[in-house]
Formats: sequence, structure tokens, C-alpha cells
Amino acid sequence: MPKNAFYAQSGGVTSVINASACGLIETARKHPDQIGNVYAGRNGIIGALTEDLIDTSQESDADIAALRYTPAGAFGSCRFKLKGLEESKAEYERLIEVFKAHNIGYFFYNGGGDSQDTSHKVSQISEKLGYPITCVGIPKTVDNDLPITDTCPGFGSVAKYVAVSIKEAAFDVMSMSRTSTKVFVMEVMGRHAGWIAAAAGLAVEREGDAPHIILFPERAFNKDKFLAKVDEAVKKYDFCVIVVSEGVKGEDGKFLSDAGTRDAFGHAQLGGAAPMIANLCKSELGYKYHWAVADYLQRAARHIASKTDVEQAYAMGKAAVEFALAGESAVMPIIVRTSSQPYRWEVGMTNLADVANVEKKMPADYITEDGFGITALCREYLQPLIAGEDYPPYSNGLPNYVRLKNVPVLKKLNSTFALKLK
Amino acid sequence: MPKNAFYAQSGGVTSVINASACGLIETARKHPDQIGNVYAGRNGIIGALTEDLIDTSQESDADIAALRYTPAGAFGSCRFKLKGLEESKAEYERLIEVFKAHNIGYFFYNGGGDSQDTSHKVSQISEKLGYPITCVGIPKTVDNDLPITDTCPGFGSVAKYVAVSIKEAAFDVMSMSRTSTKVFVMEVMGRHAGWIAAAAGLAVEREGDAPHIILFPERAFNKDKFLAKVDEAVKKYDFCVIVVSEGVKGEDGKFLSDAGTRDAFGHAQLGGAAPMIANLCKSELGYKYHWAVADYLQRAARHIASKTDVEQAYAMGKAAVEFALAGESAVMPIIVRTSSQPYRWEVGMTNLADVANVEKKMPADYITEDGFGITALCREYLQPLIAGEDYPPYSNGLPNYVRLKNVPVLKKLNSTFALKLK
Repeated sequence: MPKNAFYAQSGGVTSVINASACGLIETARKHPDQIGNVYAGRNGIIGALTEDLIDTSQESDADIAALRYTPAGAFGSCRFKLKGLEESKAEYERLIEVFKAHNIGYFFYNGGGDSQDTSHKVSQISEKLGYPITCVGIPKTVDNDLPITDTCPGFGSVAKYVAVSIKEAAFDVMSMSRTSTKVFVMEVMGRHAGWIAAAAGLAVEREGDAPHIILFPERAFNKDKFLAKVDEAVKKYDFCVIVVSEGVKGEDGKFLSDAGTRDAFGHAQLGGAAPMIANLCKSELGYKYHWAVADYLQRAARHIASKTDVEQAYAMGKAAVEFALAGESAVMPIIVRTSSQPYRWEVGMTNLADVANVEKKMPADYITEDGFGITALCREYLQPLIAGEDYPPYSNGLPNYVRLKNVPVLKKLNSTFALKLK
Repeated sequence: MPKNAFYAQSGGVTSVINASACGLIETARKHPDQIGNVYAGRNGIIGALTEDLIDTSQESDADIAALRYTPAGAFGSCRFKLKGLEESKAEYERLIEVFKAHNIGYFFYNGGGDSQDTSHKVSQISEKLGYPITCVGIPKTVDNDLPITDTCPGFGSVAKYVAVSIKEAAFDVMSMSRTSTKVFVMEVMGRHAGWIAAAAGLAVEREGDAPHIILFPERAFNKDKFLAKVDEAVKKYDFCVIVVSEGVKGEDGKFLSDAGTRDAFGHAQLGGAAPMIANLCKSELGYKYHWAVADYLQRAARHIASKTDVEQAYAMGKAAVEFALAGESAVMPIIVRTSSQPYRWEVGMTNLADVANVEKKMPADYITEDGFGITALCREYLQPLIAGEDYPPYSNGLPNYVRLKNVPVLKKLNSTFALKLK
């Protein structure tokens, strides 16, 4: 009897993480001799720890295919990080207990840096705890901050959303600036890396185009330099469009917008840099402003996903199964860029050990000298990632996203597991 | 020699106001025997007062056709309201001076309630000041608050944006709620009428779907009732999605988010209801939250425009010319619904006098008894307005919106005009 596979989604979701699930499940279904059922963890690794498994074999081929164009995490995600084997032995023993009970021999974990740390730790149970399991990570994060891979599935689509939105909003502000709004501020995601903010720079197609200012978390916010730049743009173009990353810090190293709240990983929960920046333009320069905070809208916006991103997300899920079947473990498929113009990419492989907990920041030469824009090099890197449209089908004016049945697998263990959620 | 036409865009722009411009200019070009050039006012009526006219005959047919899928106001808009003939005689005399100098016999004004008040006043100069001019308004406003017409071009697209965005964000929150965000709040436009907020209700396709709560400006905000409803949703579904109109007021009649700033019309400039509502859920109920403020993104989002809306916007511009050529004046084309299921509409006509300064609020029976949702009747009204997609063309991953040359018409007057802008 072939071993079953465990698949789960972890961390903040994206508009294409389900495309990876689609690639994985469709590929697994082509190899019934080697992979039995794909059991999805309800809410990531928590589903494994609590024996809360979803039987994906109960879903039709059509519904699995529809995952390709359905945003967010169809099986539920989680913010939950496993500690090391030594510290949390009970959790790893519980995983083995559940895997044994359900004949699970493959572990696929779809997530960002924190999640690949979990994948990496789980991969160690083969060697250290003697339970044989093939363990493959699948990259995902809108933040684009995983190392080694050229980009992360999820990023290209949020990049496209941000570039399209700022281009559209700039047309709006340009229409109104004569008698109304002079300054428009849009806040985007990106705690420590400015990739998403940088993507807004793609909307600059000719001299003077918006955004006129991008505020990166990689550059400390300097109020005077910033205000001088705003004033210059308004005097030159009659308006100024600003994109601010949620992670921008002042020269004191504190987030501009730190409200003091923390997420389960201890990260500061941000939001509110845009109104702060906008108010500054009003109080110091007297300009009328509007501001937007896209928040979840940006990472859920499957309706304006990048075709390149969708294809890469699908390819990562597919490759994960292929790697596992080829006997690879403790690895993760990656995207390897072989050419920028014309854009070409292929699937590569890296070790989870090299991915876990490493954060890729923007190279210094991707940000212009004044700190407010992107360089030609950055543009060359970003441009292909937003290329192509991949529209979902619509019914009654709304995207026809699939909702899976998510039928639970019958529990085989009598024991429950006390989860330590923060 | 046929008379020239003046066309201008006024008030807050929309993602389809240029589709009306497209319909108007394309139709005018088909009648060179009756309409000479179409001169666009740069920044609405200000363009007329300052003799700042744009020669649209310098634009190619292809560029005019591209206005159909280009958001915002291609000729610039304005927030500027003419006072009555008696109060501001100098402004009306100046209009006549400019119209005479440029042989203008048609006046087309594309805007909302305030702007149609301007159209109406200009229409009176024929009779009261003896300058013969044919005056036709063209409806536009994302707020959907013009009377008589079944809907306003601009609204259907913002409604679609809001319904799509909240559906997508809800998928995201649903994925995360087990270990992260429980409450998501999205703020939408709508100062006095809750039409845009109501459109979010279209995302509810089955019992329990988000948004679980809509806060309308038509209902005073009751903190206790609201918090009880939030808590109920979180206990039942594990999360709660809330849509709040920027115009929501407390029981004291004050905007929840009033920052004290005003726009040129003296309207309160709003923004910030979402963070206020979100913080309330945290401080009173302890729920982790995220919030988004779409602001201009919603009304500029041509990439997700409603096909119905685009068609209606175009039809309004076309009808305006046809009415003028048929000798009608002081009128405005409207959308007349002849059937909801299946949806059918036709072009009708109304008098500017009946439109100016009248605000259409949501009927009481469009809001559920508890004040937090939309009724079946409301859904029947709204549903067809978001139907169909009408994607712009893309280049390099971005919508290929047109930027007109906007060549100025040579000035013929020596005099300038001192504009009283607030």
C-alpha cells in the first residue's frame, strides 16, 4: 500500500497558494501507485498535531482544478512555529503518532521562512527519531523574502496589484489636484523587506509618473528630506503620490506605525503608516491629502493575479511531488531565472536548511540614491514577475472561487493533544 | 459653420467617466455637419472660465476609443460650484464671453449632484442672459445618489470592486482566523448614502458568508448592538468581516471619523472609520484585527470595472449628444430599468431642474431590520449593476491606459479671469 501524503498551508496566505495546492494534488493523483491519499492539515501543522486531517480525495477533479484560481488557504493556515526537537519533543512524537496512524510517508509544507523552519525541523525526525518521512517545503510569501529562490509565489500577484492600483489611483489624483487632493498615500505590506513597496515603482512609465516617492523599510525615514521631496513633486506636477511600506522605521529604529500589538510570532502588528505620513504632509506643508491602506486586499486579490506568479505557484506544488517521488527530502523547489529579457525561468531545488529563517532583503543597488525610488536594475528584476493576466471565471459579477467540502479524515487515535497557542 | 461643443468633467472622478467622454466625442464626430469641434474644459467649468480649452480634434480615433477603458478624468476635473446667476453674474458673463469667442453652442457637463446644479444654472443663461446654448448634463457619481436615474455611471464599478475585494479578503481571514486575525474591517466611500457599503453585501452568497456586518450612514452607530453582533459572528464562524461606510455617524450625529477637515464644498473630509471600529473590537472584545481603507483605489479600479457600468457610461455620453441634436436642453440622460430579472435597461431623459442638489438615499426597506445587512430587495436592485467584466488591454503587466495629448485651443481673449478658488 503506497504511503499517504500530508500537505498543509502555513503563515499569511496569498492569492496563489492554492495554485500550489492544485499543482501538488493534481500531480499526486497521477501517481496512485506511489502516493495514496493527500491529507491536508486543517490550519497547517496544527491539523497534524490535533489529528485534524482533511481527505482531499473527497474533492472532485474539477474542484481541485478550481484551486488554481481561488485565493487564500483552502485548508486553513496557521501562525504556529514548532520549536526545536530537544525543546518540544512531545510535539514531534505526536506528529509521528499521527503520521503512523494515517500511514503518512510524505510531508509537504507550503509557507514562508518561519514555515520552512518547521519543514526543516520535521525533516529531522527521520534521522533523529527514526520515523521515515520524505519532507519537501513549498515556497510561499507575498514578502518575497525567501533566500535562494529568484522569487516567491504570492509576491508577483501582490506586486501586480500594487502597481496597477497605484497607477489607477495616480490617474485619479492627477484629475483632481487642481482644486482638491494634492497628496495621496498608499500603505503596502512588507515588514522588513521593501519588495512590495518597490513593485509600485513599476507604475513609473515615464518621467514624472507616480509614485513620486516610495518609502522603504530598508531606509530610515528622514522627515525633512521626505517633506522637501513632497513639496518638490507638488510644485512640479501639482500632486504627489507616495507609497509607504508598513515596515518603515524612523531614525530611532522604531516603526512609524507601531501600535504596540504583536502577532503570534512576536512580530509587531503594523498598520497606520499611511495616515501618519498623510497628516505630516498636511500639517507641515498644508496639502490636502487622501490615503489608502490595502492590507489583506492586496494579498487576496486573485482577480488581478500575475499569470507568471500563478504558473510558478502551480509549478512549485507539482515539483514538490516530483522531488519526493525521486527520493529527495529536506529540500524545497525554487524558481531559477535563466534570463530577464526575454524572461525565462525553470524549476530548481535547494536544501531546507539553507532556507529556514533566512530573510532576503532588497539589494542596496535596487533603491535609488535618494532612497525614494527603484533603479533600472530593480525594474529589470521585478518587471517579468507581474507579467500576464490570469482571470478567474465569474458568476453574477463575482469571481467563482471554489469552496472545498473539506471532509475530515476519521480519527484513529483516542488521544487528544493539548496545543499551546499563544 | 456648425457650433462647437464644450464638454467637461466635474467632481470626484470614477473609473468610467472617460467612457462617457468616449461616447460623447465618438458620437459628436459622426455629426460634423451639426457639431464642429468638441472642446474639453481643462478641470471642468474652470477650463471655461479661464479659457483653458482642450482641442479634442487633435486626438486620434484610437486614443478617443481608449478613453472607454481609461479611469479618472482625462481632461481634469474640479470641485467648483457656480453660485446663482444673481450672485455671480460676472462668472456667467465670462462664460458667455468664452463661448462666443469659440463659437460654442453646446454645453455638456459630466458630474454628480453638485455638478448638475452647475449644468442647470448654465442652462439658464440662454433665457436669462440671451446667449443661446444647448445644455445637457451627463450623470456620474460613485455614490449612486442622483435621483430619478436608476443608477449612476461609476457606481456599478465601485460596487463590483467592493464586492470582489470583500469576498477575497474574507477568504483570507477565514484561512487565518484559527490562530490569527478574527476581525477584518474595510472602509468604503459614501458620505451620506450607503450604496457602496451595501454593494459589499453582494458577496454574501450563502448563510454565514462575509461581510457579517455592514455599517450604513443611514443608521446611527450603536456601540453595544454592534459589539454584540461582532461577538456573535466570531463565536459562530470564528471570524467577523465588517464593512463600514466612511459616512457612519454616532447617535450624536457626528461622523465617527470626522477629522475636522473640509473639502472645497464644505463637506467633511473623512477617512479613518475602519481603524476606529477595529480598535473598538480589540479593546472591548479582545479580538485581533486587520483593517483596510480602499479610498481612491475603489473608484479608480478600472481593472475590475463592471461591464454593465461601462456600457451605461458610454450610452450616457452618446445620448447627451443625441438629445442636444434633437433640440433638447436643460436635460440629462438617465438609465431606466425595465426589468430586473432578466436585467434590462434603456436610456431615458429627465430635466436638470429635477436632478440638481437632490440626494437619493437608500430606501429603508433595502436595509435589514437589525441595520447590519441588505435585504433581498436591495440585492435584486444591486446585482445586475456589477454584472460582467470589461478588462482593459495590458502591456508589461500593467493596464494600457491612454494619456491624451490635451492640446490647448489657442486663446482668443485678451482678458484673464480671476477665479475664486477656496
